[in-house]
Amino acid sequence: MQNKKIKLRSRPFGEPTPDNWELLTEEVAELNDGEVLIKVDYLSIDPAMRGWMNEGKSYIKPVELGEIMRALGVGEVIDSKNEKFAKGDFVSGGTGVQEYCISNAKDLVKIDPKFVPLPVYLGTLGMSGMTAYFGLLDTGQPKEGETIVVSGAAGAVGSVVGQIGKIKGCRVVGIAGGEEKCRYAVEELGFDACVDYQKDGLRKQLREACPDGVDVFFDNVGGEILDTVLTLINRKARIVICGAISQYNNTRPAGPKNYMSLLVNRARMEGIVVFDNAANYGSAAKEMAGWIAQGKLNANYHVETGGIEAFHDTLMKLFKGANTGKMVLKIA
Amino acid sequence: MQNKKIKLRSRPFGEPTPDNWELLTEEVAELNDGEVLIKVDYLSIDPAMRGWMNEGKSYIKPVELGEIMRALGVGEVIDSKNEKFAKGDFVSGGTGVQEYCISNAKDLVKIDPKFVPLPVYLGTLGMSGMTAYFGLLDTGQPKEGETIVVSGAAGAVGSVVGQIGKIKGCRVVGIAGGEEKCRYAVEELGFDACVDYQKDGLRKQLREACPDGVDVFFDNVGGEILDTVLTLINRKARIVICGAISQYNNTRPAGPKNYMSLLVNRARMEGIVVFDNAANYGSAAKEMAGWIAQGKLNANYHVETGGIEAFHDTLMKLFKGANTGKMVLKIA
Repeated sequence: MQNKKIKLRSRPFGEPTPDNWELLTEEVAELNDGEVLIKVDYLSIDPAMRGWMNEGKSYIKPVELGEIMRALGVGEVIDSKNEKFAKGDFVSGGTGVQEYCISNAKDLVKIDPKFVPLPVYLGTLGMSGMTAYFGLLDTGQPKEGETIVVSGAAGAVGSVVGQIGKIKGCRVVGIAGGEEKCRYAVEELGFDACVDYQKDGLRKQLREACPDGVDVFFDNVGGEILDTVLTLINRKARIVICGAISQYNNTRPAGPKNYMSLLVNRARMEGIVVFDNAANYGSAAKEMAGWIAQGKLNANYHVETGGIEAFHDTLMKLFKGANTGKMVLKIA
Repeated sequence: MQNKKIKLRSRPFGEPTPDNWELLTEEVAELNDGEVLIKVDYLSIDPAMRGWMNEGKSYIKPVELGEIMRALGVGEVIDSKNEKFAKGDFVSGGTGVQEYCISNAKDLVKIDPKFVPLPVYLGTLGMSGMTAYFGLLDTGQPKEGETIVVSGAAGAVGSVVGQIGKIKGCRVVGIAGGEEKCRYAVEELGFDACVDYQKDGLRKQLREACPDGVDVFFDNVGGEILDTVLTLINRKARIVICGAISQYNNTRPAGPKNYMSLLVNRARMEGIVVFDNAANYGSAAKEMAGWIAQGKLNANYHVETGGIEAFHDTLMKLFKGANTGKMVLKIA
């Protein structure tokens, strides 16, 4: 059986280019004891992938040159030499960017495609949802009646942050790119307001949308958006640094020049990495699944097609903000 | 009786200039009931003064044009119509930049010049010391054996931060400008090491001085120093933003371009304003006075002379780092 896979050929300087990747077709190997063979259905396409392409220390080791590109995926077990997984089981885990994955099963989690569609296990009930849940609740610590601002409001993490904020009784204001995404955040996700950073006057728009200032800012974007929100924070505000998608492809990333607003407002800016909460994923997923079942949480996602060959273009679409909700690439 | 005072005439753009000030001589008015007349002995010269000269919202209202420049001072009560204060009492409080201050006594605290010299009540036992105490202990939360880095290590706040860090059983590494200050921090204040940012290779120097990384960074300086330390922080590090003296006179302040290190390291950057701890100044001062009495805390200060007329030059010397320990201007 043939397996198409994508390896990292070279490291990008700035924006990734197609020649950073190598597409290979190889025969699927025999399973060893303890291994399972997964036919990958969907891959999670994440801003974090850009960071994994860089050399050097980060919260996770970089993908090495010549290594299969790291990716989370969901798929079906089609062969198993592991007693915990049987043919026909659906699983999520680190599959890499390939059609078939031989896994030692250590990071695999069984999932149920009858409860929610498979891509939701990469989004709201996957890393994106866990990031939103722990980042907002543990680090952002929103209190009822406070105002939460979230950037990347229509994206995989931001859309969940905003909805959890509403469940917790907060005023939720999104920041997104374009009228359609803003409409989506308000009408489909229940945000109180969503401002369009592509329009002029971001600060004025935000100020009008946040008449009581900003208590929690959940930032996925960085750059000018972070700088603008810093001018609107309240005393003791909490800024959750989840990402900085606006800066990942910059060769000279910008720092928040208004960071002294942290001093003026005795505010806090704190970075999060979802893996730190691994021990509590189960209970969080259970609560989130309950919210989905009750119709309180819209588990949205965006599917790109074209299989493995479309990986690079899909990643670039993510950076251009083509998605509302979790971006996934359909493989099988 | 004649009183020389300095009013804010105009707001600086960038570095303050002598023509931002107006020196006046006026007759001291009669006291009303409840007021006291203070002969000012020393004024506290603070980096924060630069911020008070700016228009616009900050953690405290700006000094208005035509208003006496705000300053903390210590001096002697030479006349009183307030039953709580008698002639001959020594007090500290907001006196403004002038030789004689008529105060409604609301913010005055009695001090004892026999216990420590008067300038110490502006430094280690004043705002600078309180800033160090609460900023390090409440916000920095150092644990025994951790590594604390402090910028402005020989300055009013930094020198106290480092010494409290040693009292709490931490490794303390200073950052200061010039060999003399570094020597001072190590030999007179007991820092484990102090690196000179005026020399090349700040990052390399710091890395050698902090073999176990940085757990707490207490920053008074900002700019490149903050950016460099951000590359050396440990998991769950705490960065206390106390000031950014390197940026106060910049018309275009720089932001910390390595702030994503907060994410990689799940670290926190938090701003502090000492006034928030006013209710606990008393107990902190008592503990600090105990450390001074036991010889554990060197209550250092730097006196400039020349009286009111030397105010501008003294402020500029502060920004040039001419002082080790608390900078005060002798008035009487």
